Amino acid sequence: MKIERTVFFISDGTGITAGALGQLLAHFPQTNFKQVRAPFTDSIPKIEEAKQRILIAKAADGMRPVVIMSLGNKEHRALLKEADAYFIDLFNTFIDPLGVELAQEPLTGKGIAHGVMGANYHERMEAINFTLTHDDGMTHGGLADAQVILIGVSRCGKTPTSIYLAMQFGIKAANYPLIPEDFERNNLPEVLSQYTDKLFGLTIKPERLHSVRSERRPDSFYASLDNCRSEIAIAERLMKAANVPCADSTSRSIEELSAIILQKIRQPVK
Amino acid sequence: MKIERTVFFISDGTGITAGALGQLLAHFPQTNFKQVRAPFTDSIPKIEEAKQRILIAKAADGMRPVVIMSLGNKEHRALLKEADAYFIDLFNTFIDPLGVELAQEPLTGKGIAHGVMGANYHERMEAINFTLTHDDGMTHGGLADAQVILIGVSRCGKTPTSIYLAMQFGIKAANYPLIPEDFERNNLPEVLSQYTDKLFGLTIKPERLHSVRSERRPDSFYASLDNCRSEIAIAERLMKAANVPCADSTSRSIEELSAIILQKIRQPVK
Repeated sequence: MKIERTVFFISDGTGITAGALGQLLAHFPQTNFKQVRAPFTDSIPKIEEAKQRILIAKAADGMRPVVIMSLGNKEHRALLKEADAYFIDLFNTFIDPLGVELAQEPLTGKGIAHGVMGANYHERMEAINFTLTHDDGMTHGGLADAQVILIGVSRCGKTPTSIYLAMQFGIKAANYPLIPEDFERNNLPEVLSQYTDKLFGLTIKPERLHSVRSERRPDSFYASLDNCRSEIAIAERLMKAANVPCADSTSRSIEELSAIILQKIRQPVK
Repeated sequence: MKIERTVFFISDGTGITAGALGQLLAHFPQTNFKQVRAPFTDSIPKIEEAKQRILIAKAADGMRPVVIMSLGNKEHRALLKEADAYFIDLFNTFIDPLGVELAQEPLTGKGIAHGVMGANYHERMEAINFTLTHDDGMTHGGLADAQVILIGVSRCGKTPTSIYLAMQFGIKAANYPLIPEDFERNNLPEVLSQYTDKLFGLTIKPERLHSVRSERRPDSFYASLDNCRSEIAIAERLMKAANVPCADSTSRSIEELSAIILQKIRQPVK
C-alpha cells in the first residue's frame, strides 16, 4: 500500500513555478501525494488559513505535509514556517543564493514570475493563434510562416503537441494530416512539397491508434486495427522517403515530443 | 545597461521542470539572461559538449554562467560540475533532501518527471479535445460536461485561457462569445441560462481591446474604440446582473487568469 502524504504549493502569485516542482515528486513512486494549491496567499489572514490547512492535513495523514513555498514577503515566510511541515522554500534555496551570485537584491513583490508580460508573452499568444488557425490542415495560407509543420495519420497526437509548442515556447506550429487520399497517391500532400525542411512526423503504434480511434468511432473501418496498421505503415514509408524526421508518440508525453521537436528545429540535422 | 548572463537548463529528460525555474529569474530584472536549453543530456559525450558550451558562454559574457541542472546520474553530475559555473542542482537541493524526509531512495532514471503518463495525462488530453470542440461557442452539445464556461466580448482572451486551463490542469473549459446580438437583446445567450453556475467572465480595458482588434481588422467599426467601449460596458453589466464572477485580462497573463479561475471553480463563492 502506498503512503499518503499531502503536498502544499503556497505562493503569493499564481503558484505555477512552485507547482512545476511538483513534477519532481514522480521520483518517489512509493508515496501517493495529494497536491493542494494555494495561490495568491499574500496576506496574514491567508497565511493563517494555510497554516490551519497544514495542521488538518497532518492529522489526516499522520505525517507532516511537504510545503513548497514561494513567498516574497519575509514576515509571511516566517509566519508560515511556524507550522509543522517539511518546507521547500524557493526563496531560501534558489532566489536568495542566486542574488548573492549575481550581486543583486531580488525583487520581492508578489507574483513576479508570471506577472511580467514581456515580448515573449505576446509571441506566445501570437503562436497560439497561428497554431489554432493552422490545425489539421485547416488553412494553407500562412504555412510559410510556420516554424514547424507536424504531419502524421489522424489521431496520432499532432494537435495537442502543436498547441503545447505554441503555448509553452511561442513556436508557430502548424499541423497537417496524412489521409487515405495521400496513401493512394503514394505521396505526401502536394501543398507540403515546398516546406519539406519544416516537416516533422509523428507516428504511433497500431494497437494504440486502434484504441484511440475506437473511443471516437467504435467498430468503424477507420478505427479497425488492420486499417490503422496499413495507414501507419504507408505514412512511415512516405516520411522516410522524404527524409522527414519522425518521433513515436505512443509512450511519449506532449512535453517529451515537444522537447524532441525543439531540438530538431533549433539544430537542423545535417 | 543590463548585464548579460547565460543560463543553461541541463537535463537528462525534457528539461521542462528545470526550465520552469527559469521563471524565477524575473526576480533579477537588472540582468539580461540568455537562456539555453540542453534537454536529453544523458551520456558522457553530451555532458562534455555541455561543458564546452559553458566555457564558450563564460568567455563571451565575461562572467560564469548559471546552470540549472537535473541529472539523475551521479557520475554525470560530478563531471558537469567540473565546469566553472554557478550550479543550481535540483537533485542536491530538492530531490535528495526530500528523499531523506520521505525515507525513500529517489528513482534516478533519466527523464522521470515527464516520462510517466498516468491517469492525469489522459485527463489533460481529453480536456484539450473538449476545449477545442467547445471553443468560441462552436457546439452547444456537451456544455453540461464543461467544468467552466468562459464568457466575454470577442478577443478578450477567452481562447488561450481555456486552452491553458485544459492543457495544464485538465480542466474542461468551454468558451462562449458575447456578441452584438446579445447586447441588443440585453441578455446573456439563452443557451447559457442553464449553466449560470459554471460561467466565468473575462473583461478587458477598451483601449487594449481596440489595439488587439485593430491588428486583425484595422479601421473597422468592430475595432473602433467607441464600439469596444460600448461592447465592454454592456458585457460587464450583463455579467454583473447575472452574478457571474469576472476578471480583467488587460494586464494579466493566461497563467494568472487560470489561477484566479481555478480558485473560483474549486471554492465556489457563497
